[in-house]
Amino acid sequence: MKGLAAFVFLAVIAAGTAEPQTGDWRSQGVLRLEQSPHAKLRNVPVRAVALTDGFWSARRKVNVERSIPSLYDLLEENGILDNFRRLSGRKKVERKGPLYTDSDIYKWIEGAAFVLHSEDNPKLRARIDAAVDEILAAQEPSGYLNTYYVDDRVPLRFQEMQRGHELYCLGHLLQAAIAYYRATGNRKLLDGGIKFTDYLIETSGPGKRPLLTGHPELEMALVELYRATGDRRYLDLSGYLLRGDRERLNLTPRDLVYMFSGKPFTERTKLEGHAVRAMYACSGATDYYMETGDRTYWSTLERLWNDMTRGKMYITGGVGSRSSGEAFGEPYELPNQLAYTESCAAIGNMMWNWRLLAATGEARFADIIERSLYNGVNSGMSLDGTLYCYRNPLELVGNPEDKIRNPWYSTTCCPPNLQRVLASLPGYFYSTSKNGLYVHLYDNNALDWHLEDGSPLKVVQKTNYPWDGGVEIAVNPESAREFTLFLRIPAWTNSAEALVNGGRAPSQPKPGEYLAIRRTWNPGDMVSLKLDMAPRLIAANPRVRENRRRVAVERGPLVYAMEQLDQSGASIFDLALPPASPRNYRAEYRAGLLGGVTVLEYPGLAMEPPSAERPLYQPLAAAAPEKPRAATLSLIPYYAFANRQPSAMQVWIPYQDR
Amino acid sequence: MKGLAAFVFLAVIAAGTAEPQTGDWRSQGVLRLEQSPHAKLRNVPVRAVALTDGFWSARRKVNVERSIPSLYDLLEENGILDNFRRLSGRKKVERKGPLYTDSDIYKWIEGAAFVLHSEDNPKLRARIDAAVDEILAAQEPSGYLNTYYVDDRVPLRFQEMQRGHELYCLGHLLQAAIAYYRATGNRKLLDGGIKFTDYLIETSGPGKRPLLTGHPELEMALVELYRATGDRRYLDLSGYLLRGDRERLNLTPRDLVYMFSGKPFTERTKLEGHAVRAMYACSGATDYYMETGDRTYWSTLERLWNDMTRGKMYITGGVGSRSSGEAFGEPYELPNQLAYTESCAAIGNMMWNWRLLAATGEARFADIIERSLYNGVNSGMSLDGTLYCYRNPLELVGNPEDKIRNPWYSTTCCPPNLQRVLASLPGYFYSTSKNGLYVHLYDNNALDWHLEDGSPLKVVQKTNYPWDGGVEIAVNPESAREFTLFLRIPAWTNSAEALVNGGRAPSQPKPGEYLAIRRTWNPGDMVSLKLDMAPRLIAANPRVRENRRRVAVERGPLVYAMEQLDQSGASIFDLALPPASPRNYRAEYRAGLLGGVTVLEYPGLAMEPPSAERPLYQPLAAAAPEKPRAATLSLIPYYAFANRQPSAMQVWIPYQDR
Repeated sequence: MKGLAAFVFLAVIAAGTAEPQTGDWRSQGVLRLEQSPHAKLRNVPVRAVALTDGFWSARRKVNVERSIPSLYDLLEENGILDNFRRLSGRKKVERKGPLYTDSDIYKWIEGAAFVLHSEDNPKLRARIDAAVDEILAAQEPSGYLNTYYVDDRVPLRFQEMQRGHELYCLGHLLQAAIAYYRATGNRKLLDGGIKFTDYLIETSGPGKRPLLTGHPELEMALVELYRATGDRRYLDLSGYLLRGDRERLNLTPRDLVYMFSGKPFTERTKLEGHAVRAMYACSGATDYYMETGDRTYWSTLERLWNDMTRGKMYITGGVGSRSSGEAFGEPYELPNQLAYTESCAAIGNMMWNWRLLAATGEARFADIIERSLYNGVNSGMSLDGTLYCYRNPLELVGNPEDKIRNPWYSTTCCPPNLQRVLASLPGYFYSTSKNGLYVHLYDNNALDWHLEDGSPLKVVQKTNYPWDGGVEIAVNPESAREFTLFLRIPAWTNSAEALVNGGRAPSQPKPGEYLAIRRTWNPGDMVSLKLDMAPRLIAANPRVRENRRRVAVERGPLVYAMEQLDQSGASIFDLALPPASPRNYRAEYRAGLLGGVTVLEYPGLAMEPPSAERPLYQPLAAAAPEKPRAATLSLIPYYAFANRQPSAMQVWIPYQDR
Repeated sequence: MKGLAAFVFLAVIAAGTAEPQTGDWRSQGVLRLEQSPHAKLRNVPVRAVALTDGFWSARRKVNVERSIPSLYDLLEENGILDNFRRLSGRKKVERKGPLYTDSDIYKWIEGAAFVLHSEDNPKLRARIDAAVDEILAAQEPSGYLNTYYVDDRVPLRFQEMQRGHELYCLGHLLQAAIAYYRATGNRKLLDGGIKFTDYLIETSGPGKRPLLTGHPELEMALVELYRATGDRRYLDLSGYLLRGDRERLNLTPRDLVYMFSGKPFTERTKLEGHAVRAMYACSGATDYYMETGDRTYWSTLERLWNDMTRGKMYITGGVGSRSSGEAFGEPYELPNQLAYTESCAAIGNMMWNWRLLAATGEARFADIIERSLYNGVNSGMSLDGTLYCYRNPLELVGNPEDKIRNPWYSTTCCPPNLQRVLASLPGYFYSTSKNGLYVHLYDNNALDWHLEDGSPLKVVQKTNYPWDGGVEIAVNPESAREFTLFLRIPAWTNSAEALVNGGRAPSQPKPGEYLAIRRTWNPGDMVSLKLDMAPRLIAANPRVRENRRRVAVERGPLVYAMEQLDQSGASIFDLALPPASPRNYRAEYRAGLLGGVTVLEYPGLAMEPPSAERPLYQPLAAAAPEKPRAATLSLIPYYAFANRQPSAMQVWIPYQDR
């Protein structure tokens, strides 16, 4: 720690008093916003929140015990680490994998490092250390570090910025390095990342060789590096990348759309092109806004967010409907079976909204975080932690050849991305503001942190969320203190009730807002929150072609789905919900099913004759009328789909309103 | 002609009496089926049918006068011919275009050659001759001819069969050569094609180097080469390609799906993978069946046809719904806006059904030919003949950046494919059988040909089809003769009526069958056919997600569509048809619109509030009820869409049944 303290001191000296300081690595969360002038909320450290037995602790456990170790083995088997050993001379092998595959091990390190924020895990730490050692041994003296642009391809460095992913890989290297530093205080990977970044700044950028992220990612990593080091050059480089260097790079209009980079971010008017690229660019732009306060960024971010939420987001929080280009489609282009909805894009959506929430404290962003986290992100990792969705469609026809969950993808971006989200998840439950504490997510956990004035505060949540809408929150300041407790009241609830120490809270909850309870809090205070969990039938805008006269069922934060294997008799595609259904459902928690889920059953209808017996096209007048018979519809949470045998599945269910 | 006669003689000697003879090139149509033992129908020569002023003559004129010349110029501009000049040393240039681009000029030659079947066009003939000369000058002494696998890539010849398109290009070379030979009697390109094919047979195939079409096409070209020459080796090679050489080629399951080749065609159970590949493979397999009578081929073809028509064909006759892989989707996966429906695939569908019709004489195949020709094929070329659709979607949101019709594509397969269909179209109107004459299509034209017994027969059609359902058919045998006139009664008509010389025909029409009128026909006999042209509202199978509670409007052979620019007030996506609509329409022919079309107008509904003002998702209970107001819906034929300014468009219209 002596080295670190010296560094902090020097950094403070070098940066001047107005600059952020490196601070204590232990106090830094997913984002470090203490010094960000345009952030309303600050992250709390991942380590400050202990998930106790509950919904997310089970997912976290699978992530730590199964997913992270097994993916490491697969990364080794597939030669991803050998690519570094090849350069350091430790192994004589061919380079393996796509050109951007360095990022996969970086993302794995980031996920594993976040685990270390929460627990002492010597075995995992040793694995990270070994991987870091292999990586750094391959770094060139100049700082350059990439396993693809070597040997014959050295002359192509920074020359193929549209496809090269060099800056993308660097971005993930920096994020891994920062997470590892914040886990351990160990700077070795961070110093490696800084060395490469400094090499980049020396040789490229304004007035020198033009740069393009191609696949945005480095933008947000550089802002975080600025936050971690206080070195403003990193923020400036991020701004340069966000502005783009269109003329010097000679980019085509198609490039600018697809890559969501290369032209000024503030000229964007809609979400388009590659969805992960767009989400990462928006995340980086929000980070940049929080440091600079540039309002043109903010108005662009608002415009893009409205564009997404008004016509380009699946009900699961997934985005990017087109497989061609892994891209955003037109407004309302949200096909179910063909939904591309890459896991990484849902994660990008969550990351972006996490930043928007930090900038504003507005609950509408937290609603999107919860929606994507519980549904479109959570669906991406199998319940046993060893299989991953790349696509997260909202309908499957049940073709057994269609393997939607797989242990490995040659482009294996999604698995470690899911890992880093789950490993860092404790850091998403709370924030602090000048006024007090924000509670964004509900699950069993214990917070041990402090208010922004430094006064210690412990909070414990007890709940059966998301299966039940009751949450007991013990608020334990070290001593009596006035502050505001901001409780997120999800937009999805019909009604909510809050009690403080058994009595009516001074202000009452409104769905879609934070309930602000300002009072003097005393050790032992208890808040009870009750959210109405009655399932809701959701209608889509009629412009969403496939969902006309269909409904999705939501309960709490969960979107539900029907799998064929839970139905008896009819094909799921011949089943429908009648108008009376909202009142007649049955909700039953089944501990033995899919890791424990609440199943919903509705009295419904099965159409006769079955669609399979109808012709593809026929005159309307000649079509046999639909004769419904009674049938029970059985639904499970969407995130758990395709965890048993291959089965047809659908989220949007025909609604028979006549 | 002396050379040809000698060749015919030698071929007959070499092949023995059971083999087909080369015959007179003037008598050969699109397919030459005189000697095909399992063909029920024979093609008539393209030159035997003169299209007179009418629907298709206008399209043919634009094809000859605008499309074919302008595409030639673009092929030159884009260096496609220079690729051959480069090899012959006539020009020092870089090779241009994708590896399969040789096929584009071959297809252009085929289309241009078919024009010469119908008319003397010295300027066009000179252009073809010049192109043929450039091509043949690049042919190697061995016979090998391909502009991509040259120089450094010579060692890769026939080594990259999955991607190389060498056999695909040869297939198009042969089809061009045969069309040109049948246009002019000139064998130069045919001899070049035979030389390459013979080289292939010497060096490859069973027991030698394994072959794979990769992109099927050569299969059908080889059968036609067999029909043109009588040389059975070509038929055998086609059979070898259709059986595939899976083991020796080491193909992955994914290859076998995508390429629709490489494993025995008779093992196929469904349409899958690349749609054009599948359609061409099916065409080749049908050709092979007509020569061999192998029933396992026929049962496979039936299975695949049922698979297509029961769940994988658009109402326009287009096929291949997925842009990813340009592929068939799952059954009922038929999205409208995202429809890929490549022009080439609709053409492939038409070509396949033309062969199935020849094999059987069954009207169900002619119905598909008419459906694809008038809609999904015809939509592919703009009314002015200079712009082409690659995709033919059934819905457009009206994004002006979305250029659906373009003069040129780097993969420019569709434009010359459309040209060859339109140029050869006269050859699709009639067939002969042992029993008489089949009439498949209706439009103004004059047939001058003979029955299979050799007795001359002239037929003249007078009609305003497809705008009107009346067709007057003058039947003029040279002298009185008994035979059957088979008149196609389209499946789409509600009722039909046939008169012979003003009196009731001996048998009466049934939609979806050929009306067989057997009698002694005399010079001057007149048949009047009346088809009910009342528009029909068509429903899709409820499994076609986007089309639930929607209807398509058809009138005669034409599928209709709505373009935004023809509506007043509401967005097309807020318009709906009420149940009364079938009776209340107005049909009006407008000569000045889109080259002359019958417009349909329906009293309909516009939904309030407009969808643009509704949220993307909301609880069903909270959604504002739809309050329809009266509005007029104006429809044009689908094939004419996007021929004015960019506009939203849809084929499937919400049907408001309550």
